[in-house]
Amino acid sequence: SASSTVSSHTSQLHLAKTMSSLAVNGVTCRGKVLTLDSMNPNVRRVEYAVRGPIVQRAVQIEKELREGVKKPFTEVIKANIGDAHAMGQKPITFFRQVLALCSYPDLLEDNKFPEDAKKRARRILDACGGHSIGAYSASQGIECIRQDVARYIEKRDGGIPSNPDNIYLSTGASDAIVTMLKLLVCGEGRDRTGVMISIPQYPLYSAALADLGAVQINYYLDEDKCWGLDVTELRRALNAAKQHCKPRVLCIINPGNPTGQVQSRECIEDVIRFAKEENLFLMADEVYQDNVYAKGCKFHSFKKVLFEMGPEYSSSLEMASFHSTSKCYMGECGFRGGYMEVLNMDPEVKAQLTKLVSVRLCPPVSGQAMLDLVVNPPLPDEPSYTLFLSSQERTAVLAALAEKSHLTEEMFNTVPGITCNPVQGAMYTFPRITLPQKAIAKAQEEGQAPDMLYCMKLLEEEGICLVPGSGFGQKEGTFHFRMTILPPTEKLKVVLQKIRDFHLRFTQEFS
Amino acid sequence: SASSTVSSHTSQLHLAKTMSSLAVNGVTCRGKVLTLDSMNPNVRRVEYAVRGPIVQRAVQIEKELREGVKKPFTEVIKANIGDAHAMGQKPITFFRQVLALCSYPDLLEDNKFPEDAKKRARRILDACGGHSIGAYSASQGIECIRQDVARYIEKRDGGIPSNPDNIYLSTGASDAIVTMLKLLVCGEGRDRTGVMISIPQYPLYSAALADLGAVQINYYLDEDKCWGLDVTELRRALNAAKQHCKPRVLCIINPGNPTGQVQSRECIEDVIRFAKEENLFLMADEVYQDNVYAKGCKFHSFKKVLFEMGPEYSSSLEMASFHSTSKCYMGECGFRGGYMEVLNMDPEVKAQLTKLVSVRLCPPVSGQAMLDLVVNPPLPDEPSYTLFLSSQERTAVLAALAEKSHLTEEMFNTVPGITCNPVQGAMYTFPRITLPQKAIAKAQEEGQAPDMLYCMKLLEEEGICLVPGSGFGQKEGTFHFRMTILPPTEKLKVVLQKIRDFHLRFTQEFS
Repeated sequence: SASSTVSSHTSQLHLAKTMSSLAVNGVTCRGKVLTLDSMNPNVRRVEYAVRGPIVQRAVQIEKELREGVKKPFTEVIKANIGDAHAMGQKPITFFRQVLALCSYPDLLEDNKFPEDAKKRARRILDACGGHSIGAYSASQGIECIRQDVARYIEKRDGGIPSNPDNIYLSTGASDAIVTMLKLLVCGEGRDRTGVMISIPQYPLYSAALADLGAVQINYYLDEDKCWGLDVTELRRALNAAKQHCKPRVLCIINPGNPTGQVQSRECIEDVIRFAKEENLFLMADEVYQDNVYAKGCKFHSFKKVLFEMGPEYSSSLEMASFHSTSKCYMGECGFRGGYMEVLNMDPEVKAQLTKLVSVRLCPPVSGQAMLDLVVNPPLPDEPSYTLFLSSQERTAVLAALAEKSHLTEEMFNTVPGITCNPVQGAMYTFPRITLPQKAIAKAQEEGQAPDMLYCMKLLEEEGICLVPGSGFGQKEGTFHFRMTILPPTEKLKVVLQKIRDFHLRFTQEFS
Repeated sequence: SASSTVSSHTSQLHLAKTMSSLAVNGVTCRGKVLTLDSMNPNVRRVEYAVRGPIVQRAVQIEKELREGVKKPFTEVIKANIGDAHAMGQKPITFFRQVLALCSYPDLLEDNKFPEDAKKRARRILDACGGHSIGAYSASQGIECIRQDVARYIEKRDGGIPSNPDNIYLSTGASDAIVTMLKLLVCGEGRDRTGVMISIPQYPLYSAALADLGAVQINYYLDEDKCWGLDVTELRRALNAAKQHCKPRVLCIINPGNPTGQVQSRECIEDVIRFAKEENLFLMADEVYQDNVYAKGCKFHSFKKVLFEMGPEYSSSLEMASFHSTSKCYMGECGFRGGYMEVLNMDPEVKAQLTKLVSVRLCPPVSGQAMLDLVVNPPLPDEPSYTLFLSSQERTAVLAALAEKSHLTEEMFNTVPGITCNPVQGAMYTFPRITLPQKAIAKAQEEGQAPDMLYCMKLLEEEGICLVPGSGFGQKEGTFHFRMTILPPTEKLKVVLQKIRDFHLRFTQEFS
């Protein structure tokens, strides 16, 4: 019978496993405790394309180049990740002066440092245990820095109040996002928490949901409308999901990653109305809030719009918004600084959140110090203001990013088979690529995503490392890649030209 | 019938909940999305006493003192946590010079910095993307720092090889410990992973296990034998646990936290033999490896003992060991630096581990830089060596800790009702306190652990913040507290005297 076949199959498997765990080289052993089969199955399901197989191959190629292996290129350009300093962007002088002063306070006696930098450093050190950034801070973050964050938010949002008690400093934004998701996940089977995320998405979300065993609910951004978000699509996704899970959370990335769209005020209002109607917890990932380039586009924080919609919304919608030191004009990724602001959170849950973050003791204090400078940069009457705002620093970075966003869009749209929405904001372009049927068939034969085949070939032939669209999610049958616009303008032009040449060659090869 | 009573009760509850989610101040609402009832139940079960209710009360009292509220003391002494700098310990000059140079590389031109500090800073910066500690690093950590860690381990362990590919840098040791546990947890019901932890334990372990929904298996350290570990007790705990879960992991903290014992070589051999026989993954928390004070005690790394037991063990036992920048003589907690070394890990699982850590991008780069200095301090022929080793820095810190460990043990053992094992290593004493029956009864009436009542009263009356033994686990019917020995010697004497006075008063009050 079928069942005895299965059973006999199972015992053969069992026998094989037992055999494999007996004698190897004369030493008796039982096989590993920890194997692919016996590890946490949720972790196995985690995927994170931004540092996936293509990046591992890029690192390998870099090593081969160092060892003298001949390639059709002399360096690998890693356009897979939003890592500004790695692309040659210089840090903001004032920020690094303060960090040096905090690290080695003997420098406070040094006349070479401007007084405003010393003042900031002293204020941070005074808020540290034993006046040292080597002491643990409060788990929620240093109090005076949380106050500075609250004032920054108030200023950004035209005076809408922000309470430092609602601010949690974090180890980059990723840490706070994962913590928030962890709090929200519960239930089993059809009661399991469902979390709505955009497709395309930043894969931290899908990775965290897999790890937590939560249900991922996909809503699609509309590529034909500049990656716009439509509430009709949110509703479709939600209703479909209600059949098999309990949707409780809506995640929004604005400005978008990987898609670079900047949401209009109306769109944000619609989203808030939808979240309230459907009783969803809203998570607003706003780490690119200073990265807006397109004419007519403006960053609107979800919090500001929420409060402007009146107390019916602002006093009830539960929300968390996230920011980071890693993006914008400073690009200080390595410091792992970030914060979240929670709104309308049940006080008992807030106590649980505080307890949960205390287990890891505190976010890195140097990252907290960096965040303090980001939310509290030099003021017009301070000596460091001129350099900070000058054409070498903040203004220069944002102007160059704006220029590169336009350049990228224009260039890609001249290539037959590549179409590209405007990069309204953030740091990436996510162009759509038309792949020949033969290439798709070849990829499928090899069990590979067709845009992975494309990107891998681009890496091998041109030394350019991009992330295939399949790593972010995309509408069935469409293909994309994500590329950061961070390389210096002249290098970016070369990269765009190389991708153009490659795309034409690839299309021809598989036609 | 009973069942209809239950059902009616349930619907009344349901009605009450529905009512509460209707009209508040005229605004219709449905109640919160996220409440104690609807949040992640595993997170609710998490406890972390080191920063628990007693510390929250301590922070409140500090605020009251600032606001001028009269108390029987003028400052709160937080002896609840191993936070050296907060207790006035000064950072190592060389470490902070290098950190300042890495933060603000313009200082590389400054003649005030010693050449060896500059050399280290240049080496670290050369290994960073764009020569900036603001760039993301590889998720596993900067390669040259992993090499330095491997060389440090080799030197520590008398030449036993260490492979940089087995080193994972982390955000403090806590991060790596949680990551490792996460990898190891699987199965449901009786197949759920069981993890053996010592009682008393450092509550990161119980917190992580609650969060992951793993089964905590308690094995008891023997207070009468200087908090020694006996394999008979390990076996008892394991066999009992096999009835209801699948034990797969054995966690050891050596030197012990909170108990301060240093394991003998024989004990470590026994543990290794036990882990191998029982097919357990061994996690060795060795963050206090430089903190050994008692005569005749010596730190033996699990790895060294494993290799000295021969290939039968060293080629098969799966193991991870953990270290940190937060303890030892440097106490750089705020930088959140750490590493783990994994041994005999299945290569496929290692790939999964690398994937998992990539989701958070990288540990803080300044913490990685700090770790590099810890594993690669100034050498005898370098200009910074003299100060580093001098009576102001490394040597001074370790000598003072040794003195304070003896002082603490001696002092406590003069108090009737307090008995205290030697503080052989680490940074804490965990004395046993005899509590009067009336105090125990009063605590039980108030639904409080008796040693929590004791510590809370000590905080209110003397301004000294300790952690009750119940936060670490202890044998039923025994009571303890954990106190760090980090306060400066003169202050520590005052603290010990105050605890003595309090203990006598407390005993009298409840007799």
